[in-house]
Amino acid sequence: MEKKTAAVIVIGNEILSGRTHDVNTNFIAKAMTAKGIQLTEARVVPDDFDLIIEAVNLMRERYDYVFTTGGIGPTHDDMSAEAIARAFGVKLVQHESAYQMLLDYYKDESKLNDARLKMTYLPEGSDMIINKVTGAPGFKIGNVYAMAGVPKIMQAMVESLLPSLAGGVKIYSISVTVNLVESQIADILQKLEEDNDGVEIGSYPSFKDGIGKVSAVIRGPDKEKLEHVSKALQHAFIDLGGSILEVKEL
Amino acid sequence: MEKKTAAVIVIGNEILSGRTHDVNTNFIAKAMTAKGIQLTEARVVPDDFDLIIEAVNLMRERYDYVFTTGGIGPTHDDMSAEAIARAFGVKLVQHESAYQMLLDYYKDESKLNDARLKMTYLPEGSDMIINKVTGAPGFKIGNVYAMAGVPKIMQAMVESLLPSLAGGVKIYSISVTVNLVESQIADILQKLEEDNDGVEIGSYPSFKDGIGKVSAVIRGPDKEKLEHVSKALQHAFIDLGGSILEVKEL
Repeated sequence: MEKKTAAVIVIGNEILSGRTHDVNTNFIAKAMTAKGIQLTEARVVPDDFDLIIEAVNLMRERYDYVFTTGGIGPTHDDMSAEAIARAFGVKLVQHESAYQMLLDYYKDESKLNDARLKMTYLPEGSDMIINKVTGAPGFKIGNVYAMAGVPKIMQAMVESLLPSLAGGVKIYSISVTVNLVESQIADILQKLEEDNDGVEIGSYPSFKDGIGKVSAVIRGPDKEKLEHVSKALQHAFIDLGGSILEVKEL
Repeated sequence: MEKKTAAVIVIGNEILSGRTHDVNTNFIAKAMTAKGIQLTEARVVPDDFDLIIEAVNLMRERYDYVFTTGGIGPTHDDMSAEAIARAFGVKLVQHESAYQMLLDYYKDESKLNDARLKMTYLPEGSDMIINKVTGAPGFKIGNVYAMAGVPKIMQAMVESLLPSLAGGVKIYSISVTVNLVESQIADILQKLEEDNDGVEIGSYPSFKDGIGKVSAVIRGPDKEKLEHVSKALQHAFIDLGGSILEVKEL
């Protein structure tokens, strides 16, 4: 099975000013991991045509899937449709299906003011992604999926897209947490990673009330190999004087 | 006063796999906003030399300050010092001050094993950033500040650095929240932004139990102008049939 990769582009000044805490990247990261797609980069860019276009064009060349969040609404700071159209070198055109979704939402043509109609203009050649919460459609063009910034809407869009994405090699993980510090276990982690092809070991320290612990996260496509490395790690941690605090399959 | 800009590079597979939720970007974003420095891009990159080096070299050219988080510890997946040294084209050299900090931390030279000593090697020409929690130093080279990934340690490092950063134009914000939806207020937001030079208006919808509301965030360096726009917005919202739910200075 082929390896599949993805990138996230979070569009919005509110994340960069600190007003809003981005939760979309984490949601997409988990969804991709579950699907065997490797999220390889994530970027936050402001509401700025040049920076959005630069990120979209670089990421769509480099990765199998690109997910953008934010900027699909009716206000002047919503520039994703125009920016992505420019990135692809196509025009914005009114989409019949987007118009129909909006009409279904508002029931009445007289309510379709200019701001609302703006949302029916999507890049030429794109397919609409349905938004059940508001009338603002997302869209897919090439390998780029433009979604809402509001987390609940974005999540519904991702869920609806997942079945259509080709998954890659599923990666399993086991996390082993021990009451030691990183500098005590650095050698064994490195040795076990070197000795076990296709296994990646990450080391994540944490501290509470001055007491350190560390989680070694073993990742790879071969579940049996992970179990083997997990046991070897646990034995080594005990020999180093540690107590195993938790072993968890993620 | 000059405009000052910054970028964040979060280094770590754990963010991209979804295991860990990044909280460092939001902390740095708020600290920069308070200091009048405009955080203009944030990136999450994996533990991969090429991608770290690419991001560091692009960001340090483009922005006044670059903050990296993660990858400064003693394990094999901690590659920030080597990656940033390579980005600057310099060697890793042992820093006397880093060695001394480690010795102070462990009290005993015999405890300085290879993994611990690895942390005393920093890019040539860099200055150490003190880490009071563990022995792993951060460092500053050029306009790049390499910090810990563990949020509490990263936060202490940022606090210690802030006095040394030249601040830019302080940007104030007022948020006006109303029980209308974006497509009702799009025109007035755009008009008020166009009519008020130096004022930026962002529109942030949210939905709870199917009920929509929207916060208009007015940002700019001129507090009086913001007050004026805030009042104009409130009047317009009321004329559109809305109720003002909250007006907040951020």
